[in-house]
Amino acid sequence: MKKILITGGAGFIGSHLARRMLNLGHEVTVMDNLFTGNKSNIYDLEVNPRFTFLLQDVTQPFWGQFDDIYNLACPASPIHYQRNPVETIKTSLLGMMNVLELALKTKARVLHTSTSEIYGDPLEHPQTETYWGNVNTIGPRSCYDEGKRAAETLCVDYAREYDVDVRMVRIFNTYGPNMHPRDGRVISNFIMQALRAEDITIYGTGDQTRSFQYVDDLLDGVLRLMDLNRSDLIDACRKHGFDIPVMNIGNPAEFTIRELAEKILELIPGSAGKLVFKELPMDDPQRRRPDISLARELLDWQPHVPLKDGLTKTIDYFRTKS
Amino acid sequence: MKKILITGGAGFIGSHLARRMLNLGHEVTVMDNLFTGNKSNIYDLEVNPRFTFLLQDVTQPFWGQFDDIYNLACPASPIHYQRNPVETIKTSLLGMMNVLELALKTKARVLHTSTSEIYGDPLEHPQTETYWGNVNTIGPRSCYDEGKRAAETLCVDYAREYDVDVRMVRIFNTYGPNMHPRDGRVISNFIMQALRAEDITIYGTGDQTRSFQYVDDLLDGVLRLMDLNRSDLIDACRKHGFDIPVMNIGNPAEFTIRELAEKILELIPGSAGKLVFKELPMDDPQRRRPDISLARELLDWQPHVPLKDGLTKTIDYFRTKS
Repeated sequence: MKKILITGGAGFIGSHLARRMLNLGHEVTVMDNLFTGNKSNIYDLEVNPRFTFLLQDVTQPFWGQFDDIYNLACPASPIHYQRNPVETIKTSLLGMMNVLELALKTKARVLHTSTSEIYGDPLEHPQTETYWGNVNTIGPRSCYDEGKRAAETLCVDYAREYDVDVRMVRIFNTYGPNMHPRDGRVISNFIMQALRAEDITIYGTGDQTRSFQYVDDLLDGVLRLMDLNRSDLIDACRKHGFDIPVMNIGNPAEFTIRELAEKILELIPGSAGKLVFKELPMDDPQRRRPDISLARELLDWQPHVPLKDGLTKTIDYFRTKS
Repeated sequence: MKKILITGGAGFIGSHLARRMLNLGHEVTVMDNLFTGNKSNIYDLEVNPRFTFLLQDVTQPFWGQFDDIYNLACPASPIHYQRNPVETIKTSLLGMMNVLELALKTKARVLHTSTSEIYGDPLEHPQTETYWGNVNTIGPRSCYDEGKRAAETLCVDYAREYDVDVRMVRIFNTYGPNMHPRDGRVISNFIMQALRAEDITIYGTGDQTRSFQYVDDLLDGVLRLMDLNRSDLIDACRKHGFDIPVMNIGNPAEFTIRELAEKILELIPGSAGKLVFKELPMDDPQRRRPDISLARELLDWQPHVPLKDGLTKTIDYFRTKS
């Protein structure tokens, strides 16, 4: 049994991770300020004696003795993170510093969830971990993107300078139950609109592509990465030119936004919605798709859940929320 | 008379700024932790009753009522900033947050010194302010580059969300008296080697180019930017697609590293040194040159000091240090 801290553990991905860790027999502390996280995501876990909920903002210093810390705290959808850009970037930066300081002092292992957003509007396709990205420092998305970029830098700096055991995943678009129904992101938007028999709003032409990963696939990758022996992992990373583990975790299957909308309309037969098109927001990336060769090789991992199956489960969840 | 705070005011550029501000009749507080700054740079200012020195690290909260805050605190040469990468990135991030919080609470105007390093190893030449840069989040230079990028983001976020009056300059290579003689950067390296009649070490082929700006030119630009009326400035910036002022300040005249070495050898006739070549460090940018159209138009500014004149003054200074 391990003692595990999950920052942002009441959010979409964090709540799945907490549930999975409890099922594996671990002791789980979920820390969340409930800005975008929600108690309803972890309500069923609270009866478990191995579960603790801590209402705490990750930007404020905290203390605790944990074996593993999973750093997931940060609003992740533009509609949320742009509501208070200063708090968003502080969450990434101060949260990361607090996690790394705690890990340094307590010798905890850290899994930091970075994001495909660090690639910005990429000029290379698909994106490998060696691609440096194309991000605007002063745009409306910067509070998230640059906060996440600097958080990666903090991770490698603490790892190199203080030998903190940090592993990073760059998460590409992920979906599933417990997503925030009003997070403004494309899957929740489309499903909610279809369930309400409203028109489906597409920003831009709908020809921009995305890859969509079901949350269970993501967690499989994350757990494999955290289970690896440190020195073996570092050795394997070195062969690929990295001294600190950083890995894309996403589904390389590419769909256009228009295809996604059509698939969702198929799965919700009652929907009367048609597609309507609106102007693309500033700095919205045109295309993003992970190269997952590194995760395939080092973790023997790849996504398994087909989009249709994942969407069906997600739609079932959203029906309870609409 | 204005009350002015200069973080990093005992450093190379900060000490020139402090001197200039005192000469203009202002009251100047220099804050510095003296990690790379040096009391000898401001020794002659300490007798001035309008001058205060504050030994303080910018990462720790501070308070004071100032009209203008100039945020210059950060080790800027790889040899210094890579000595303690964690402290380097914290200086950029926490220092910026502390400055912006103070400005927010006291309604001070902020001049933040960003850097051409936010462009990384640029894929566009020359660099305009709209170029997003090409920076590695996990490389050996990231502690500086990503810290500075996220500091820009903090500036625009505080400006947009809390209406803090922030102005940013992206400073390109700058040189002059008070440079740290052992900062490992190309001008100090070359001059110190030539003065000691040692060989001149060139990293790479020497065909990589740089633009070199004399420190007086930089300060002229910075002062003009800070003197502008805020609403006029914002209006002018908006015409160029920016809602927050950010401006390249540098000298567009391009020289190869080899030309620079030859020029310095000319100016130090006694030197017996010849050029020797070593391997280029990882992630070292091949080329960087500012497009200064924006500063020309908005500030009616351009650099005036020819490289030969600036080098002569700098060599005179280094003679006192060698």
